[in-house]
Amino acid sequence: MTTEMLERRTRVLGPNVPIFYDCPVNLVRGESVWLWDADGRRYLDCYNNVPHVGHCHPKVVEAIAEQAATLNTHTRYLHEGILEYGERLTAKFSHDLTQLIMVCTGSEANDVALRMAQAKTGKTGFIATDNTFHGNTSAVSQLSTRRPPIGGYQDHIQLVPAPDSVRPAGGSLEEQSQAFARNVEAAIAKLEESGHGFAGFMLCPTFSNEGFPALEPGFLDPTIEVVRTAGGLILCDEVQPGFGRTGTGWWGHDWMGFAPDVVTLGKPMANGHPVAAVVTRPDVMAAFRGAFGYFNTFGGNPVSCAAALATLEIIEEDALIANAHDVGAYALERLRAIEHPLKAEARGLGLFFGIEFLQTDGSAATGFAGRVVEAMRHEGILMNRIGRDMNTLKMRPPMPFQRDHADLAIDTLEKVLERTPL
Amino acid sequence: MTTEMLERRTRVLGPNVPIFYDCPVNLVRGESVWLWDADGRRYLDCYNNVPHVGHCHPKVVEAIAEQAATLNTHTRYLHEGILEYGERLTAKFSHDLTQLIMVCTGSEANDVALRMAQAKTGKTGFIATDNTFHGNTSAVSQLSTRRPPIGGYQDHIQLVPAPDSVRPAGGSLEEQSQAFARNVEAAIAKLEESGHGFAGFMLCPTFSNEGFPALEPGFLDPTIEVVRTAGGLILCDEVQPGFGRTGTGWWGHDWMGFAPDVVTLGKPMANGHPVAAVVTRPDVMAAFRGAFGYFNTFGGNPVSCAAALATLEIIEEDALIANAHDVGAYALERLRAIEHPLKAEARGLGLFFGIEFLQTDGSAATGFAGRVVEAMRHEGILMNRIGRDMNTLKMRPPMPFQRDHADLAIDTLEKVLERTPL
Repeated sequence: MTTEMLERRTRVLGPNVPIFYDCPVNLVRGESVWLWDADGRRYLDCYNNVPHVGHCHPKVVEAIAEQAATLNTHTRYLHEGILEYGERLTAKFSHDLTQLIMVCTGSEANDVALRMAQAKTGKTGFIATDNTFHGNTSAVSQLSTRRPPIGGYQDHIQLVPAPDSVRPAGGSLEEQSQAFARNVEAAIAKLEESGHGFAGFMLCPTFSNEGFPALEPGFLDPTIEVVRTAGGLILCDEVQPGFGRTGTGWWGHDWMGFAPDVVTLGKPMANGHPVAAVVTRPDVMAAFRGAFGYFNTFGGNPVSCAAALATLEIIEEDALIANAHDVGAYALERLRAIEHPLKAEARGLGLFFGIEFLQTDGSAATGFAGRVVEAMRHEGILMNRIGRDMNTLKMRPPMPFQRDHADLAIDTLEKVLERTPL
Repeated sequence: MTTEMLERRTRVLGPNVPIFYDCPVNLVRGESVWLWDADGRRYLDCYNNVPHVGHCHPKVVEAIAEQAATLNTHTRYLHEGILEYGERLTAKFSHDLTQLIMVCTGSEANDVALRMAQAKTGKTGFIATDNTFHGNTSAVSQLSTRRPPIGGYQDHIQLVPAPDSVRPAGGSLEEQSQAFARNVEAAIAKLEESGHGFAGFMLCPTFSNEGFPALEPGFLDPTIEVVRTAGGLILCDEVQPGFGRTGTGWWGHDWMGFAPDVVTLGKPMANGHPVAAVVTRPDVMAAFRGAFGYFNTFGGNPVSCAAALATLEIIEEDALIANAHDVGAYALERLRAIEHPLKAEARGLGLFFGIEFLQTDGSAATGFAGRVVEAMRHEGILMNRIGRDMNTLKMRPPMPFQRDHADLAIDTLEKVLERTPL
């Protein structure tokens, strides 16, 4: 059946459509941290952060079903849904981040964030790291480095070397922190020289796509100071660390310890319903709303708000942030204890883990990490890889992940590591 | 309560957030073509095309609820949902438009369409009309003319005068058709001169946002030939005319009579669930998939596909295209029969109508049209305005709109027109 589905897929979706695993999984059902394929085989989900409060959480399903049966319109009519959700969500933020725009995807959120910085500063130049992904619109794709856009990269984007905790460019974490800030300073100078000027720095506070390096709160302090001095905005992409993933609070920037000007939210926000948002200060919002006539038809519709509100309430009712902290710490201890000749580092923050592998000559063990992911899939554990060289196992399960789930995943990982050819 | 809600709205959403009516409507429930506000007052919906098969259609609600309770993941796993929907949807197209990418909003779809044209042609220049809207991402916002972007308009976009059936630039419809093509030819020359080259022309086949002028099939023939000769792509935005709105078939381009290279779909596609898509030929898709590493987390997820499939099936089961044709013709005849000193033209195609008003000196009766819209809202009929000068009433109801709904709307309109100060 898989072969037939892959053929249909190529016929109707075209070539090169991203898919996981050499032997793709045909999933038909999900519940909490579990997924089932069409043959009835069960998988432990150690990868998906979108079903944040668990696959098919009944409270989210009910909220969606009830509101979809009642009314679904747009924000050009008044509706209680977006007001209540907006108030509840912004109450989770400090730093005067009190206003929001609701959109449908993290990409749309980051696309708006760029224009907020343009509106606030009057400048058009941006900085990102050199190994990241902030979304798929034309504008935010420019911040990614995967394939050069047609017509080439535009010089209003400057990329700085991403942090790396295993093979850093040089020195201690403190020295890296300073070096990162100096690189940002140089990038700002280039933007000023080019005439674009410096509008903002878009970053993920845990550098999730960069390989999720092991950093510490305060790492970004020198960088934030450089950005502030230059008059640019910090655009904080919380699509991955947000909503309690770190186990330390609601947002990655609060863990890292800085005050962003704009925060973007996405994937986990409504447990899979297409909901995302941009949260910012009133002065930034006023600048944006004064410069652009922005309206998003589906953004903030009553069903989206109901799904997002239910997700937010479950995070609190089920104490999922504390769970991420406790289970995260337990799992990280077990991952750190794994002994393997190619293992370079096990790192984690809440329910986000990276296990990086290097060859004995210090080069990335990309092929090995790939073989481990495939073997785990065949053992019924779904995970994947991250990092510049894709040599880091990525585990980022739904938030109701428990200790026995961690034990099952890590017991299996130990077995797989033992038998996977180096 | 409205005042309090508006205050909360400004506090949490910021200033200048688009809203309808001087006295906004607080909607709490919808069913078919009807909406109810918090005071229990009923409104006839003559505006919203997003609830395409009717507000809260039970079959769509059930499809969403059932799939949300079963599984909601992404397209990097195999799933029957996107395959079945993709096959069913592309079967509605001719011109070898057999492949699709599913996204979440029409804006995302148009953003992808621009890059398809870039990938296929290797060029970066685009043409649009000078009074349009194709979405809200940074890239597609450049095709709109509302407010200049920070840093100014970029010269890779050339705008041509939009068609106008009431105050055309000159001559008969046939002469306008030729003039439109000549303007496109000149715009292509400018793009070639600027070094961007000509990638494509993005247009709505019924020019919905331009004011929905009364055109005839074949109007675009000379333009299509110019675009083909220059090697550019026709990017056809079916977000408004698509899914049977015209009452003549599934797509506006089939009514107008041309073969697009790329078609974008949005708003009505899943009856309000955030679903949109890009449909194209295999050669264009292969070029795009070869040039860009595109993945959309929420795009084509199982719930979105279930909502879209249910919507597609209802259009067929309830014969909504034939209904749009029949009720559309009936309503248009009645609208044409209205006599009013400022009425310049009543035009329509299926369930999309424009009633344009000019002052006796030939200038746009913008204020009058605005007063009519407000008065209709107070009479319980929701509609709005379009056109360069916002002097054209826009009626675009959900597709289950019946003759008695048309009678209620038009009887009310006649009364309102009679008493509204000129």
